[in-house]
Amino acid sequence: MSNPCIICVAITGSVPTKTDNPAVPVTVAEQVESVQESFEAGATIAHCHVRDDEGKPTSDPERFARLKEGIETHCPGMIVQLSTGGRSGAGQARGGMLPLKPDMASLSVGSNNFPTRVYENPPDLVAWLSEEMLKHDVKPEIEAFDLSHIVQATRMADAGKIASPLYVQFVMGVKNAMPVDERIFDFYIETLHRLAPNALWCGAGIGAAQAQVNEWCISRGGHTRT
Amino acid sequence: MSNPCIICVAITGSVPTKTDNPAVPVTVAEQVESVQESFEAGATIAHCHVRDDEGKPTSDPERFARLKEGIETHCPGMIVQLSTGGRSGAGQARGGMLPLKPDMASLSVGSNNFPTRVYENPPDLVAWLSEEMLKHDVKPEIEAFDLSHIVQATRMADAGKIASPLYVQFVMGVKNAMPVDERIFDFYIETLHRLAPNALWCGAGIGAAQAQVNEWCISRGGHTRT
Ligand SMILES: [Zn+2]
Ligand SMILES: [Zn+2]
Ligand SMILES: [Zn+2]
Ligand SMILES: [Zn+2]
Repeated sequence: MSNPCIICVAITGSVPTKTDNPAVPVTVAEQVESVQESFEAGATIAHCHVRDDEGKPTSDPERFARLKEGIETHCPGMIVQLSTGGRSGAGQARGGMLPLKPDMASLSVGSNNFPTRVYENPPDLVAWLSEEMLKHDVKPEIEAFDLSHIVQATRMADAGKIASPLYVQFVMGVKNAMPVDERIFDFYIETLHRLAPNALWCGAGIGAAQAQVNEWCISRGGHTRT
Repeated sequence: MSNPCIICVAITGSVPTKTDNPAVPVTVAEQVESVQESFEAGATIAHCHVRDDEGKPTSDPERFARLKEGIETHCPGMIVQLSTGGRSGAGQARGGMLPLKPDMASLSVGSNNFPTRVYENPPDLVAWLSEEMLKHDVKPEIEAFDLSHIVQATRMADAGKIASPLYVQFVMGVKNAMPVDERIFDFYIETLHRLAPNALWCGAGIGAAQAQVNEWCISRGGHTRT
């Protein structure tokens, strides 16, 4: 590989709870500890969600601030990426943590189906989130759940609405969105490269598909997420 | 081409009004007349939307019944395809015309962005619409606004939730969904063929892109929509 390999660790998603898996870190203190273990094992990006006192996903900027501070203290040099995903809030509340100026934040630029509902990222919210990221100098990680999301990100970058070079994550294996498919994975890379030659990318396979997608990432020179 | 060329005419979309274009047929009588002209010119499928008395899109089964009857009377043998699209209604109202047993109906199996909003096709509504189509023996035309919609349709066909062979329309040129892109058009064909070898397809370019997409359809042996 010509690029250094960026290992991105998503310590806590928005879905699993302590009931599903007692090892899932939920409090900020647990999360910082977990990120630190990954950091010592070589991870370079921490993709972060936060939970409220009941363990439910939230976009609360105050919790994000504590998590960011804890990671910066215990993992110097690690890239902090905060989630603006729609499972943790609605509307502009999803971007309430951007003034914290994390190194990165996730950004969805299109909509798609999830297992039981529509993952809604309406055009005006996408425009607002990307403006906020430009304003606070936050680098987006584009969460691509479908091919048009990749194309849309390149168009937004061409129009100066997202800073270049793009950093895109190909997400596969979410039910009712794009499944894990190697030929499509390769076409994602080809399309991104064709439309934004300087873009970087990583892949994320959900659940059982994680190891498979990581293998494809590594063999094609992309970054990985665990 | 090995298949006969199916020319699909969409006489009235859900967006244009008489103010935009006085030639847009809006009343059922106007629509029937317009379909008949296309039929005599060689069109074989009529893709139909209906309007209410104010000219606004509606899913009213009574209007659809009159339009279907008019086309059947004046265009014997023409395939009637009724729209279950989300611009004309919400929730199960979108499928209220399926008991009329038209030859075909449009079916979206995923969600995506439109110019100013989310085109919402939640999983439970998709499941219900496809069940209704099976029950009333209505052949769906899958409206694919993105790559995962094609994949999802093939999975639903494999699971017996949509009758085979699939008939898929690739829609390009809607702002914030998939733009008009020849390489992606070819990948759509390749992917459909790989996952559902017997499927048929057609292409629809929106607005200025219509002629371009029709040209690609014809040169690759697909069907066209005007
Ligand atoms: Zn990543
Ligand atoms: Zn996330
Ligand atoms: Zn058609
Ligand atoms: Zn239509």
